[in-house]
Amino acid sequence: MKFCSECGNPVKNEVPKGDNRLRHVCTHCEIIHYQNPKIVAGTLPIFEGRILLCRRAIEPRLGYWTLPAGFMENQETTSEAALRETLEEAEATVELEGLYTVMNVPEVDQVHIFFRARLLDGNFGAGEETLEAKLFTPQEIPWDQISFPTVFQTLKHYISDHPLDYFPVHVKDILRDK
Amino acid sequence: MKFCSECGNPVKNEVPKGDNRLRHVCTHCEIIHYQNPKIVAGTLPIFEGRILLCRRAIEPRLGYWTLPAGFMENQETTSEAALRETLEEAEATVELEGLYTVMNVPEVDQVHIFFRARLLDGNFGAGEETLEAKLFTPQEIPWDQISFPTVFQTLKHYISDHPLDYFPVHVKDILRDK
Repeated sequence: MKFCSECGNPVKNEVPKGDNRLRHVCTHCEIIHYQNPKIVAGTLPIFEGRILLCRRAIEPRLGYWTLPAGFMENQETTSEAALRETLEEAEATVELEGLYTVMNVPEVDQVHIFFRARLLDGNFGAGEETLEAKLFTPQEIPWDQISFPTVFQTLKHYISDHPLDYFPVHVKDILRDK
Repeated sequence: MKFCSECGNPVKNEVPKGDNRLRHVCTHCEIIHYQNPKIVAGTLPIFEGRILLCRRAIEPRLGYWTLPAGFMENQETTSEAALRETLEEAEATVELEGLYTVMNVPEVDQVHIFFRARLLDGNFGAGEETLEAKLFTPQEIPWDQISFPTVFQTLKHYISDHPLDYFPVHVKDILRDK
């Protein structure tokens, strides 16, 4: 951020009075522009014991397999965002079966939230951001071609939890290797 | 948003190509400025069967009782944000005992996330944004003076779950009365 989105004048980096972090503050109208993490919401869609994955048609991680997910929009709930992204990316209509993973990715200022979901009719397809969508048995998951750590972890949890038919909510931090 | 934060020129409201929502788009550099929901993270701190509440020293809801919580910052995890807010608002050091509520408030583009927490040493105080902090037994909770619906619901869940000593994660949407 270089300019104030309210008045168009330059911003400076400073710690406002009573605060303890550097913020973008307008040099003219003095508005403080806070920046906060974004939520990525998605689903783990299951159909007859198989998991629906999408191969990404866009960067980052073009060509890698992912769960349908994307940035939550204003005026949405996390569930609505997850359902919308599943429809957009996998052309699939699902029924949510509960919150499943909440994963912090502080390096990129994101929190990823996945819901378990039931693919209602077995229909799916490749949305605009998807090269192909496909159902995988647990044994078929292409572990070395998974898009993001949060997708990898969500899939791993499902593989562990599924035999017990017990799916607690998993909270995890994805930290950069030191 | 009236001006582009990258180049300082005016923005217009339009639906970008391939998108389906109105965005702020710069009339000069054509950058699309997305806006997304913010996360509020906090704790439900317990000490010897009592719940720590803070009376708000700031608007909105000045004078009302709340759980310690606030906006998650960039480069934080949700746990770190919850611990920081608890220290700032209630001057309390807590140990998190698990994710407890995830509540969407689409009307204000927020998601509120509360963790159950154990107040470690019984010490607490009033931070800068707090008039007073106080421990309440379940019977003493001032239900008609609670700050926000998400705090109210989190407290209600705790009162219901505590006798069973079973604390599943509760996901809820707080929707405006129609």
